[in-house]
Amino acid sequence: MAEIRWKDELKTKEGQHLEELLTFLRMPGISTDPERAGDLRDSAEWVANRLRAAGVPEVEIAPSAGHPAVIARWRVADDQPTILIYGHFDVQPAEPLELWDSAPFDPVVADGTIVARGSSDMKGNLLTAIQGIEAAAAANGGQPPVNVSFVFEGEEEIGSPHFRDILRQHKDFLHADAVISADGGQFSSDTPSLAVSLKGLGGVQINLTTANTDLHSGSYGAWVPNAVQSMVQLAATFHDEDGRVRVAGFYDAVRELSEAEKEEISRLPIDEDEEKQKLDIDSLWGEAGYTPRERQWVRPTLDLNGIWGGFQGDGVKTVTPREAHLKVTCRLVADQDPLEIVELIRAHCEAHCPPGAKVDVVPLPGSARPYSVNREDPVFGAVKDVLTELYGKDPVIVRNGGTVPATGIFQDELGVETITMAWAAPDSKAHAPNEWYSVADYYRGREGYAMLLERLRR
Amino acid sequence: MAEIRWKDELKTKEGQHLEELLTFLRMPGISTDPERAGDLRDSAEWVANRLRAAGVPEVEIAPSAGHPAVIARWRVADDQPTILIYGHFDVQPAEPLELWDSAPFDPVVADGTIVARGSSDMKGNLLTAIQGIEAAAAANGGQPPVNVSFVFEGEEEIGSPHFRDILRQHKDFLHADAVISADGGQFSSDTPSLAVSLKGLGGVQINLTTANTDLHSGSYGAWVPNAVQSMVQLAATFHDEDGRVRVAGFYDAVRELSEAEKEEISRLPIDEDEEKQKLDIDSLWGEAGYTPRERQWVRPTLDLNGIWGGFQGDGVKTVTPREAHLKVTCRLVADQDPLEIVELIRAHCEAHCPPGAKVDVVPLPGSARPYSVNREDPVFGAVKDVLTELYGKDPVIVRNGGTVPATGIFQDELGVETITMAWAAPDSKAHAPNEWYSVADYYRGREGYAMLLERLRR
Repeated sequence: MAEIRWKDELKTKEGQHLEELLTFLRMPGISTDPERAGDLRDSAEWVANRLRAAGVPEVEIAPSAGHPAVIARWRVADDQPTILIYGHFDVQPAEPLELWDSAPFDPVVADGTIVARGSSDMKGNLLTAIQGIEAAAAANGGQPPVNVSFVFEGEEEIGSPHFRDILRQHKDFLHADAVISADGGQFSSDTPSLAVSLKGLGGVQINLTTANTDLHSGSYGAWVPNAVQSMVQLAATFHDEDGRVRVAGFYDAVRELSEAEKEEISRLPIDEDEEKQKLDIDSLWGEAGYTPRERQWVRPTLDLNGIWGGFQGDGVKTVTPREAHLKVTCRLVADQDPLEIVELIRAHCEAHCPPGAKVDVVPLPGSARPYSVNREDPVFGAVKDVLTELYGKDPVIVRNGGTVPATGIFQDELGVETITMAWAAPDSKAHAPNEWYSVADYYRGREGYAMLLERLRR
Repeated sequence: MAEIRWKDELKTKEGQHLEELLTFLRMPGISTDPERAGDLRDSAEWVANRLRAAGVPEVEIAPSAGHPAVIARWRVADDQPTILIYGHFDVQPAEPLELWDSAPFDPVVADGTIVARGSSDMKGNLLTAIQGIEAAAAANGGQPPVNVSFVFEGEEEIGSPHFRDILRQHKDFLHADAVISADGGQFSSDTPSLAVSLKGLGGVQINLTTANTDLHSGSYGAWVPNAVQSMVQLAATFHDEDGRVRVAGFYDAVRELSEAEKEEISRLPIDEDEEKQKLDIDSLWGEAGYTPRERQWVRPTLDLNGIWGGFQGDGVKTVTPREAHLKVTCRLVADQDPLEIVELIRAHCEAHCPPGAKVDVVPLPGSARPYSVNREDPVFGAVKDVLTELYGKDPVIVRNGGTVPATGIFQDELGVETITMAWAAPDSKAHAPNEWYSVADYYRGREGYAMLLERLRR
């Protein structure tokens, strides 16, 4: 009965909910850009107000040393379980802007998708949680069937540097039996999935300098070290020809896969031909000895995210540059520790820095331990049931090559598991130009959250 | 008698001539920047007007498919020789701007130097020629003792791509017995020098792409080629550990040095300790088996002038980039051909492009053959005498690691030698931040040009 009522309610509100998402997507909350602090505050206010409108009685903006978070609580009964919904309202930078077909913060709805920065990662998902819970509460006499709390942060895309502080400060308020992360996606639009692990993250910026000034290549290029050349020499030492990371000790803590895990992963291979065609490449790449799916899900990587140095304008400048810069992040797996990995990279840079060059290795803000879910947790079972009902088939077991730093922090600080229930498509171009989200997945995702509350009721 | 009069004249005008140079330096004629076309036209007009003010009767702006040149002629007698003064009024870009201690186009005069983009390369030198010839003419009854022509171009810093066209169009007008290039410098402030060779130049921009979009490193980094990583792998193949260029065929046309040439070069070694201290580096670099001076003067190089790709902002962006770019120029020696070298680089890039990446190798505008002076030319002897008198000692014989594309073009089109007579200091930071020029060298340089005309008189 309640289910029928919230289904009707959600159906009726489709147009209004789409408009809400478009409004939210117009807020350029790029957490890595210090000039966007005001936009992050606006996004936090918008989310807080949306929670209040949904009927959530306790809603607060929680300040931090960085961007604020939104915390909220809807306690209904001591004998019901409490779930904590996690998400983030910050987004990745939109660069390179010239590769977008439309403005990244001016969402376009066409062919069943919404194209905008933050659409799939993860403003759409965040709203499905609020709207689904709002509908379940409305159908249940004005309050949800179980206790629900919320924590939405504004720094996920920069590695959640202050999230631990926020949880510590609001530990009692946010106490829960399990966390549901709304940050993630499904295996495909018809096959649901349950993620059992997430990779960790650690990164550095490498600043390399040679002489104390840029120099004329005719006078100096033949006998003075060139920072761009020194940097490419150093950067080329990070991988061997088989795609293995050459940083000494990088793999030492990595747990080898069991045969059972290998078998489970092998059930969902990456279709190499299809992906090559889709991405317009004639060859894949990566660590030899593992399938692409194994590499994506359970093998650590060292990724070069950006490089710059010397003259980058039109035409010619015959300069011997004095400095060059490289951004590196690593996706980590159990039991790698991000702080140890950063130190290994530092040692590698010092050992491989070409003669005449100096390197400064600066850890990038935010790091995260890899995370594995306890499949025995009852909320894991509840999410599994919801997905099965929602999609009409059992979810497949997947791993997530991405990172949600909050998962490890929830385990440390609240002592609870995090189970992901989210709706982004795997090729949704998160972090890339023309990021998109499916309108149908958005509408269906709201139902998932309403169903979950019903199912958790004791 | 004439000499005394022009010396007095030049002494009297020191303040006025310094002001002229400062005005000229305020014109940001960056030839590589398409948005500066108007500034280049303004610079050409300014130079043309300065020639007219000096008394030169025939002065024209010579348009080209790129930036215009200024050509001028002062014919005085059929029985006197004709020299053609060469220079350029364009300048290098000023980037990186943050490394300048003052604004690059707002010259600062302090401690006997003028700091500004274009001060040493080569607006100061250009004015010494005009002002010296003006003084010699004034002292000689209003016209110079020999025939003098001028060609000042606006595209030297981008490799003089239209200079050959300009010479062909104005071949009769510019006919001369020898060219004096005012673009260059002296060995030191007390030791004059005569340059007997200049390096050639050829370059490319390498554009490398992998997938058709930037990708999320968590989802794709482990199994899709990364353009920044592919680029550093490719770029690191250009040199071996001994600093030799690994491009197949690169050295094939290079003439080995004779023992006599080696001996001549060894008389003027680079002081390695002093340079390391000055540049704040603990090690030099370059092709093994040659001294730093040999490398600078007579060995070819392949220089990485700039690199960029992926995320270059503050903070973290966990992207797998789809494109990266590299600027490469080569300094060439006899008998290397710049067009052949560009083709060798193209073949190298195609052979060494990592799997899954595609490279597009685009020749950069402007290329120049290496150039050697005929030491038997009488104008070479005259310049030698002038330098000896001006500095009170014989000039040393040097090579120039830099490139003046015009030299080879003069040889081809007018059939004449180019001898350099110019005044920049070797550490003048040409092409780099805080470029400077000595006020004393500026004033003395004018005398050199007046003396040269006297000496060439039959």
